[in-house]
Amino acid sequence: MALIVQKYGGSSVADADSIKRVAKRITEAKRAGDDVVVVVSAMGDTTDELIDLAQQVTPLPPQREMDILLTAGERISMSLLAMAISNLGVEAQSFTGQQAGVITDDVHGRARIIDVSPSRIQAAVDSGAVAIVAGFQGVTQRTNDVTTLGRGGSDTTAVALAAALGADVCEIYTDVDGVFTADPRIVPSARKIDRISYDEMLEMAASGAKVLMLRCVEYARRYGVPVHVRSSFSTRTGTLVTDTPDEGGAPMEQPIIAGVAHDRSEAKITIVDVPDVPGKAARIFQVVAGSGVNLDMIVQNVSVASTGRTDISFTLPASDGAAATAALTEHQPDIGFTSLQYDDMIGKLSLIGAGMKSHPGVSAKLFAALSDAGINIEMISTSEIRISVVTRADQLDDAVRAVHTAFDLDSSEEQAVVYGGTGR
Amino acid sequence: MALIVQKYGGSSVADADSIKRVAKRITEAKRAGDDVVVVVSAMGDTTDELIDLAQQVTPLPPQREMDILLTAGERISMSLLAMAISNLGVEAQSFTGQQAGVITDDVHGRARIIDVSPSRIQAAVDSGAVAIVAGFQGVTQRTNDVTTLGRGGSDTTAVALAAALGADVCEIYTDVDGVFTADPRIVPSARKIDRISYDEMLEMAASGAKVLMLRCVEYARRYGVPVHVRSSFSTRTGTLVTDTPDEGGAPMEQPIIAGVAHDRSEAKITIVDVPDVPGKAARIFQVVAGSGVNLDMIVQNVSVASTGRTDISFTLPASDGAAATAALTEHQPDIGFTSLQYDDMIGKLSLIGAGMKSHPGVSAKLFAALSDAGINIEMISTSEIRISVVTRADQLDDAVRAVHTAFDLDSSEEQAVVYGGTGR
Repeated sequence: MALIVQKYGGSSVADADSIKRVAKRITEAKRAGDDVVVVVSAMGDTTDELIDLAQQVTPLPPQREMDILLTAGERISMSLLAMAISNLGVEAQSFTGQQAGVITDDVHGRARIIDVSPSRIQAAVDSGAVAIVAGFQGVTQRTNDVTTLGRGGSDTTAVALAAALGADVCEIYTDVDGVFTADPRIVPSARKIDRISYDEMLEMAASGAKVLMLRCVEYARRYGVPVHVRSSFSTRTGTLVTDTPDEGGAPMEQPIIAGVAHDRSEAKITIVDVPDVPGKAARIFQVVAGSGVNLDMIVQNVSVASTGRTDISFTLPASDGAAATAALTEHQPDIGFTSLQYDDMIGKLSLIGAGMKSHPGVSAKLFAALSDAGINIEMISTSEIRISVVTRADQLDDAVRAVHTAFDLDSSEEQAVVYGGTGR
Repeated sequence: MALIVQKYGGSSVADADSIKRVAKRITEAKRAGDDVVVVVSAMGDTTDELIDLAQQVTPLPPQREMDILLTAGERISMSLLAMAISNLGVEAQSFTGQQAGVITDDVHGRARIIDVSPSRIQAAVDSGAVAIVAGFQGVTQRTNDVTTLGRGGSDTTAVALAAALGADVCEIYTDVDGVFTADPRIVPSARKIDRISYDEMLEMAASGAKVLMLRCVEYARRYGVPVHVRSSFSTRTGTLVTDTPDEGGAPMEQPIIAGVAHDRSEAKITIVDVPDVPGKAARIFQVVAGSGVNLDMIVQNVSVASTGRTDISFTLPASDGAAATAALTEHQPDIGFTSLQYDDMIGKLSLIGAGMKSHPGVSAKLFAALSDAGINIEMISTSEIRISVVTRADQLDDAVRAVHTAFDLDSSEEQAVVYGGTGR
């Protein structure tokens, strides 16, 4: 008998019929002999409707009140799901983030989980009931105020709860069959990945794969929670994210390359004609960091000897473009550059695989594949298990397909499913 | 500077515009120098929509989950109202029943308040903020589970909070101008009552006046909370429910008669041919009480000497008719009656006034007025400050008008407003 934490997103509980379908799935797991704890998001469009209501009342809703408003969504979905399960003859009880012991910091709207004390959940499970827990929400330790965890929050709730309960696996139900070697909308021959390590999944998530949020994977890695990403619309096995070897004791399946991720959400800022003297680069990145912006890739051109000046480029989330540009412009006299160029027509391709650490020639093969496809590389960055390149945005799809093929990732059958993102 | 608790019902916060209007009213009270705590119900149709969702999922929703579901409604209205107030430049924070310290017993769906510990509300008020509190909900002491208070629950929350905070007044905002001498839909010349005692208001509520629920008035009387029933659509003074004398120190205005209430929700059961021996009546009322039904009026006919048998009639809420009938039928051999008659075509008229205690002839005048109007009286019951009579349902409106006129309650101007009930 295993303890399973299952997480269902908003699209899986969008209406009464969906809720009944999910309830049936949960009772089947329970009747198969496992203990089941369920984390659920708000129904389909509820969150958008609540945000719309807030906008009708005020252009700038206080974040504390916004959190109270939004958490009404899970209250509705979790109680309905508990009712639907009870209707199938299985005892079920729903719990708010507070009742489930999800303690967070007090950053409303994007709180981080500090601790999970799921004694009530454990008691419900021990009594033979299915426990339904509101995803995406917690309470502050000090004031008992309601917080929300921001995007991907329900996945994080599920993994955190699985860690605190010592669950055998955390199943993330979504509208796709698992994690793929590339986005099937771009690469129809992309293969579903059966097993992937935390490190690889982290790099995939950080590089634009939307099926799992970065913080959820970070949490799973830190606590060693096996995460099973699978479809709520089929019973097929999905993708297992874990570092544990296969049950036979064989070493974990480890192909050289796990997959190709892409990201269209970044922009590039080039700072032109910076005096090439010590400390200037540091000053620039101080200024950018001071505006609350996280940089991604950085390139400094070779200094032009005759002028003693250089150009510095970096990428950042396009949504932070305005803040970074404003901060740099404010410090232009201080830094001494002549102009700024802002470019949001870029795309980023990342090749990810723990196997590349021990296989030389991966980057050579990558660059050759892109070159053969006529794609220009504007920036490069690497980690132990990832190589990322920046291309023109309109060449990104071709680049992903070329690299996917070059590294023998293509499957013989094409994917019919639409690859979507997770909500909250 | 006074501390005012204001309660707004669902029709006062039915949409974004209504919420903004209520927010404006609250900020005006705050800017006039008073401390303001607001209790709010769910928006307009929210509760019905949530009940409908539950019905789509299961025919018999567990009551614990139903309470979690329904309390989502106040979460939405209270956070939106806090946002709207903030938007007008006044600090506002919303609080759930739990955060407001509303502790109840564990009878889900119709919990009773055990205690209110509003330290967070007091702190918010002390910091200069308007505190918005979810009506209709609390938490159990032992398990911290969410409960709802049942019909009229938000009014009770408001009065209980006013008592715990030592508020100067509890203002109940509704869609009518106050408590009237009769339902203006039946008696267009009904007058608004300016002041009424707790006892009279209790009798009015118990006799069918829907503007305040019985338990809310009971709570107000027990803790001596002055309740001001007024319209959220006008700034007119409404009805003050209190035992406190007028400010000038003059005794409270005390007309003989406060008003005429009516009730169409009762039914009459007649038990035919009961053996007229000691203990039979007691046995009957044991049986009825054992089925969880509250009796209202009881009449035992004079025994027929030749047979040694009698008839016993009583009234009860029509919604309890089936339960009482079933219980009595089950015990027919034991009690020994020949048949049961069930009649839900009755109406009840009640004349209420603390002044009638010291004024003889009130009942004579009442019976004369009904007789002159050609209305037959089927049952009578009295208390110190109330006389109730049962008539045919289709004669009830005429009866109310005749009695209202006979006791000089008619106003010279007719009411234009529609007299509605309160929600929850």
